[in-house]
Amino acid sequence: MAKGLTNRDKDFSLWYNELVAKADLAEHSEVRGCMIIKPYGFAIWENMKAELDKQFKKTGHQNAYFPLFIPKSYLSKEASHVEGFAKECAVVTHYRLKNAEDGSGVIVDPEAKLEEELIIRPTSETIIWNSFKKWIHSYRDLPLLINQWANVVRWEMRTRLFLRTSEFLWQEGHTAHQTKQEAIIETEKILDIYSDFAENFMAMPVIKGLKSENERFAGADETYCIEALMQDGKALQAGTSHFLGQNFAKAFDVKYSDADGKQEYVWASSWGVSTRLMGGLIMTHSDDLGLVLPPKLAPIHVAIVPIYKGLDQLNKISNIAKKIKADLEDKGILVVFDDDDKRKPGWKFAQYEMKGVPIRIAIGPRDLENGTLEIARRDTLEKEILQQVGIANKVEHLLSAIQENLFQKAKDFVDNNTHIANSIEQMNDILDNKGGYVLAHWDGTKQTEEKIKDKTKATIRCIELNSKKEKGFCILSNKPSNQRVIFARAY
Amino acid sequence: MAKGLTNRDKDFSLWYNELVAKADLAEHSEVRGCMIIKPYGFAIWENMKAELDKQFKKTGHQNAYFPLFIPKSYLSKEASHVEGFAKECAVVTHYRLKNAEDGSGVIVDPEAKLEEELIIRPTSETIIWNSFKKWIHSYRDLPLLINQWANVVRWEMRTRLFLRTSEFLWQEGHTAHQTKQEAIIETEKILDIYSDFAENFMAMPVIKGLKSENERFAGADETYCIEALMQDGKALQAGTSHFLGQNFAKAFDVKYSDADGKQEYVWASSWGVSTRLMGGLIMTHSDDLGLVLPPKLAPIHVAIVPIYKGLDQLNKISNIAKKIKADLEDKGILVVFDDDDKRKPGWKFAQYEMKGVPIRIAIGPRDLENGTLEIARRDTLEKEILQQVGIANKVEHLLSAIQENLFQKAKDFVDNNTHIANSIEQMNDILDNKGGYVLAHWDGTKQTEEKIKDKTKATIRCIELNSKKEKGFCILSNKPSNQRVIFARAY
Repeated sequence: MAKGLTNRDKDFSLWYNELVAKADLAEHSEVRGCMIIKPYGFAIWENMKAELDKQFKKTGHQNAYFPLFIPKSYLSKEASHVEGFAKECAVVTHYRLKNAEDGSGVIVDPEAKLEEELIIRPTSETIIWNSFKKWIHSYRDLPLLINQWANVVRWEMRTRLFLRTSEFLWQEGHTAHQTKQEAIIETEKILDIYSDFAENFMAMPVIKGLKSENERFAGADETYCIEALMQDGKALQAGTSHFLGQNFAKAFDVKYSDADGKQEYVWASSWGVSTRLMGGLIMTHSDDLGLVLPPKLAPIHVAIVPIYKGLDQLNKISNIAKKIKADLEDKGILVVFDDDDKRKPGWKFAQYEMKGVPIRIAIGPRDLENGTLEIARRDTLEKEILQQVGIANKVEHLLSAIQENLFQKAKDFVDNNTHIANSIEQMNDILDNKGGYVLAHWDGTKQTEEKIKDKTKATIRCIELNSKKEKGFCILSNKPSNQRVIFARAY
Repeated sequence: MAKGLTNRDKDFSLWYNELVAKADLAEHSEVRGCMIIKPYGFAIWENMKAELDKQFKKTGHQNAYFPLFIPKSYLSKEASHVEGFAKECAVVTHYRLKNAEDGSGVIVDPEAKLEEELIIRPTSETIIWNSFKKWIHSYRDLPLLINQWANVVRWEMRTRLFLRTSEFLWQEGHTAHQTKQEAIIETEKILDIYSDFAENFMAMPVIKGLKSENERFAGADETYCIEALMQDGKALQAGTSHFLGQNFAKAFDVKYSDADGKQEYVWASSWGVSTRLMGGLIMTHSDDLGLVLPPKLAPIHVAIVPIYKGLDQLNKISNIAKKIKADLEDKGILVVFDDDDKRKPGWKFAQYEMKGVPIRIAIGPRDLENGTLEIARRDTLEKEILQQVGIANKVEHLLSAIQENLFQKAKDFVDNNTHIANSIEQMNDILDNKGGYVLAHWDGTKQTEEKIKDKTKATIRCIELNSKKEKGFCILSNKPSNQRVIFARAY
């Protein structure tokens, strides 16, 4: 831990890579583009997963599991879907290896060639809709509200841990409904779950919006999203919820008979968040000392470090620390008492800072005399001497305060980095010098969006839901526009 | 639900397939050998997973996640491992599809061929040990206790839902230790976790033992297992825990420096249970009416069915049912109140029986007058009229009684179906007419085990741990033997 991190100001991207490594979150595997999620990183992901899963179940969704493999022909059934996903997938062509005849090792057995190649799922609409066809007959079978936690693969040439990897973990919800209206309500309900989770658990402010046609999911009529702003001023798409219309119902011929026996195609949604959220979490809060975690997702809330000389002092401090630990644990607070004799306190302090543990408590010889302890907040780095008596209540309140402070700080950052531009030049000036969201008028066409992207490297992150109407003129075409949309350079 | 199941006595295998379908547990996908785990089946698996995960964490293990893909060359590093797994794996050879030039659909892009083929993990020792090499330097890094929940693929020609599928879900633990003794203790500790889980949660009695060399995991020095006996008299391997010696440490060159700075290879274990446990659960308890579930793993503990004519009666019954539901839920009991007006009570009864809900409560017009209800146990099919007052406590006790009864019944079944054979003829006679475990003497050689298998279709399920010593003579070779081992025909 002696060597710190590159400063964010100096090289944000390098800072990120170093942090992910030093906080023990994840590492690259030797398999191109695939990551290894290390125990500490995985514990954070498990906390995210547990909370999201609770929300999905509370709103009537059930988990299920569908195959990893998708027959090549399935992918072709929905025309725009295959366009969007066929280009970047892992293809299984054989099902056996054998020993090479020259004894050089194992080779693919040419005789074990599959009749039809299998694609590793890049997303599961096609295989799931193939099942929905069998599961849905009557209006009584609807709504069908399914979620799956799974690994998916999209072959990526340029990868970054958590943000863009060939294999990643996610949840994908797939639902079917009687009416268009119900499917839209579902799509929006999930967007609310995502946004509540992002703001209340990740302490990451997000904007809820609609994607432009360019950025829409392949096979969707409408893609809703939550967008977040990272500390380097780049935007991150943090979750998407798609209104699929009847596209997959028609591609897979999924109809239901209504109360009068009439056959109708069902209406659908699909939605997902992934381990990419880990990247968002890191880049929203962390600092030059390492990870900063919101208490609601931290695998450890409090680290207690004894400062002592000799076994006698350690024993006395241990007695106090263990009592405090027990009191905290009674409140559901996760505590580590680190009495490892092989490491110095300074090393431990740096270690827990790097790992983003929200609160550090240090107890030394003077505290033994005074009945005190030193408490340090990871978010503000403030330290305070407090009485040991009643510390559990104080820690509990402090954890809430840290959670709130992180959100507020991030919210202020977004507010301070949301700008208005009325010309391409102004947009480029903002993006080059400040970054952040840029609100600008756009004429609503695909062509204009592409041209703006060419000129600014910014894309439309979203058309904010319920954004206020404002008449103006497209910054590129000068055609009339009814509202500003949100542009940014993005991950 | 009008159509029941084939009786177990008539065709156990058909009964199993019908039950898995009718209880809505799982179904075959159109992808060869891959299953779809339906929401009700997945809810049971989630309960299993939650309890096992709790036990792993309580004993110091941490979850992590490693890539789905294993470079072909990794698999070759441990000689016996590649022999065991290379034959049955899915091989990724390409990473892109493209539109066929004749417009016929998408084809594999021949230009997107991987330099080195990737294998879909059949088990992750090789990819995990490649990481352990980077993670382990000193004795301070040990023990390293890692678990992962993942999907794995072993290409299977003959598949059965849950019991043998090409893709399945499992957990795989991988640990590294300083000494041989520690690694063996870990291997045995996990075996105890598996066996406690099987007996106390699944209510499935198991025998703890060692596999013979023939049945050992490819790459292990010793394979420990838990074996269960199904109602058709066939055995099921329910979980394995492997002592890997230093085989993978040597294959991947994983050494640690001890306190004196001396370099040593680490010692290892690996262990896993899978969705196969679902098959064991089903075949241990279920009957000709459908699934029977131990309360500790049931997604629904109690189904309350109103029996009524007209809305007025339904309203009165609903008031009582909702009160009972709330009282039960206060005790953590999972309750469904099924007031679906579109289904008759008889249909609902059959439905909850098929799904193995441990307790059914029916409330009818007479119960309104008498302050009573009818309670039915799924395990014994016994019905009883009880007072509504104090019902929550009674249900709580009844759930414990059902859990115990299921275990005791299964235990009696194992006891009644464990036989002794002193000759091949006797073994065949038992296996053909009764099934079950057959205890017989064996000379300890691979050759003899194979010959016995040829003559009886039975394999050595395990050499029971702590089994009593008994001198005798091998039933095939007549050579001396010190103890009987457990033979059975197996899944």
